Amino acid sequence: MAVDNDGIAVVTLQRPPVNSLNLDLLQAMNNTFDDVAKNKSKGMILTSASPTVFSAGLDIMEMYKPDPKRVETFWVTLQDMWLKLFGASFPTAAAINGHAPAGGCLIATSCEYRVMLSGKFTIGLNETALGIVAPTWFQDSLRHTIPTRQAEIALTTGKMFTVDEALKVGLIDETAADKAEAIEKCKKFIKRFDKIPSLARGMTKQIFRQEVLKKLLTNRQADTKQFLDLVNQPKVQQSLELYLAMLKQKSQK
Amino acid sequence: MAVDNDGIAVVTLQRPPVNSLNLDLLQAMNNTFDDVAKNKSKGMILTSASPTVFSAGLDIMEMYKPDPKRVETFWVTLQDMWLKLFGASFPTAAAINGHAPAGGCLIATSCEYRVMLSGKFTIGLNETALGIVAPTWFQDSLRHTIPTRQAEIALTTGKMFTVDEALKVGLIDETAADKAEAIEKCKKFIKRFDKIPSLARGMTKQIFRQEVLKKLLTNRQADTKQFLDLVNQPKVQQSLELYLAMLKQKSQK
Amino acid sequence: MAVDNDGIAVVTLQRPPVNSLNLDLLQAMNNTFDDVAKNKSKGMILTSASPTVFSAGLDIMEMYKPDPKRVETFWVTLQDMWLKLFGASFPTAAAINGHAPAGGCLIATSCEYRVMLSGKFTIGLNETALGIVAPTWFQDSLRHTIPTRQAEIALTTGKMFTVDEALKVGLIDETAADKAEAIEKCKKFIKRFDKIPSLARGMTKQIFRQEVLKKLLTNRQADTKQFLDLVNQPKVQQSLELYLAMLKQKSQK
Repeated sequence: MAVDNDGIAVVTLQRPPVNSLNLDLLQAMNNTFDDVAKNKSKGMILTSASPTVFSAGLDIMEMYKPDPKRVETFWVTLQDMWLKLFGASFPTAAAINGHAPAGGCLIATSCEYRVMLSGKFTIGLNETALGIVAPTWFQDSLRHTIPTRQAEIALTTGKMFTVDEALKVGLIDETAADKAEAIEKCKKFIKRFDKIPSLARGMTKQIFRQEVLKKLLTNRQADTKQFLDLVNQPKVQQSLELYLAMLKQKSQK
Repeated sequence: MAVDNDGIAVVTLQRPPVNSLNLDLLQAMNNTFDDVAKNKSKGMILTSASPTVFSAGLDIMEMYKPDPKRVETFWVTLQDMWLKLFGASFPTAAAINGHAPAGGCLIATSCEYRVMLSGKFTIGLNETALGIVAPTWFQDSLRHTIPTRQAEIALTTGKMFTVDEALKVGLIDETAADKAEAIEKCKKFIKRFDKIPSLARGMTKQIFRQEVLKKLLTNRQADTKQFLDLVNQPKVQQSLELYLAMLKQKSQK
Repeated sequence: MAVDNDGIAVVTLQRPPVNSLNLDLLQAMNNTFDDVAKNKSKGMILTSASPTVFSAGLDIMEMYKPDPKRVETFWVTLQDMWLKLFGASFPTAAAINGHAPAGGCLIATSCEYRVMLSGKFTIGLNETALGIVAPTWFQDSLRHTIPTRQAEIALTTGKMFTVDEALKVGLIDETAADKAEAIEKCKKFIKRFDKIPSLARGMTKQIFRQEVLKKLLTNRQADTKQFLDLVNQPKVQQSLELYLAMLKQKSQK
């Protein structure tokens, strides 16, 4: 994770090969978000060091045959990451320079603005396709971004949107030809706030997002329990095992 | 009520002439929904045996000069029907092959997908036009489907949407030339879930709809009381009487 | 404030030069709204006596170096105004014949329908641009009208929409060539309810808006405290002072 700076923090996710979110990466993200807040940066742009994947989402190795203590810490750290990012008082934008399934889409929809590279990449909360369930706050991040009707069908079918589909439904705001242009467009969005007093801006955003944030804050323990119960179901472990086998086969081709 | 089957349950409402929802029909629907859940069907399609009416909505005879005990059972059974249908873990779709006013629109908007026959049919929550009030969960079913702004004006004006209007605003998803095609398109929707593990799908849908469902579940008694109070108002009884007289006149032409 | 009548009350805001909402104007509005309800008018249209401003929003003089007692009464009266207008059982429409920033936009979005004069006027909740914060119910009035995504960016950037932009996003429903036509179009909207029993209509609207209304009703004291805390922050007083200086300079040109 590298932080570049010209008033705006450009945070590059770099956990090869696909930025899958394990405990370590999530902890590093949380520390970085805290730093961005402390440094009073103008805003933050999230992007990826990978040329093809923004983030592949949660690291399945954290969920497959998990250590009980670690998997709980993993989930609580993921909750923290979302609370910090979705609730950040500073402006946030995602320069989506690759695929963004599941947790990758969560990160993108937690930002205030999304620019995605034109091309073959896809984005969406595809949890059901893996036999797992997007929790309330994953779903809320999507509902915050696209209309209710489209969000429901996307979630139940585990839909991965093409760039064109994402743009049409409002899941992304703009497209870009390459990563540099994506970052530039995100910066342009953040610079819209140059003349807006940051205290008022941050409070306004937090009021706007308060109901969704409160839902998790007042419900964290139940949410954690629900995840742990789900992850420990034999059927879910089977789905993860199948998925891992499929990934392994793919990588051997 | 006939149940046809090829993995997908096709449930045909058949209470001539217009499938108005009385206590008996609602009880039959609830039993059928339970059966569909037990049979682990791939999904359920609701359609009508009438060539012109999907469902005319609540049977006004249950509300006009009602027996106190029966009208309460009627309402509680209607709540059950909605909780079962809106909250069904299996995929649901409506093949709307005729008019769908009031309760007919409620049934349609409680499903996950709607295909309506092209032509002169209309759909909407037109309760205000009859001098009655669409309860919160009727309204929520509409708000779940179309944007807030359009939902409010539709509800206050008691708007019946033409097929073209319904398609444009998102109240229906597709049109079809005839009933067979409508059912085929509904099946195609349900088959989108063929590769989605059904446990994860069902939980995802129920999380997505949980707030709306909870609202009625935690508020059932007050909702019933509100309905009974309204139905017993002289003004409402007058509106219903006028409406019945109008229907009678129409049917004599 | 003049009330004209032909079954529909046309309420003209006239506090020169820009209908800024001070305590006196808000109290007069509240009395008028009560009268409209008592007179069982068919509906109410809000418009402005100014040729260029619908309402400039809250009178900054009520917030700049405020008297502690008066500023609290001011806020509670503003809450009352919104509760009466947003929650009015009778039909409401705004003939927006001039700029409608901040509180002016709040009034417009609290109505059920909006017709705005074509031309150079703008509308929006631009509080952040002044270094202040649109409270939850201001934000909710906007979210009630336009999609969540657009509402958030509009609020954080303090966006003032041109008439074309407002029409496109749904912030207004129609445009008009002049004030008379705007009022005529508002009347046409209100006349849609001519055949709708008013008891059922009013209850339907209040059910539709109940969650947003309840949020303020159950939270009034905290909302007042939050406003008073904010208004007493030195940074906010500085922002207001700068803004007043800018206004003064403008008016001297």
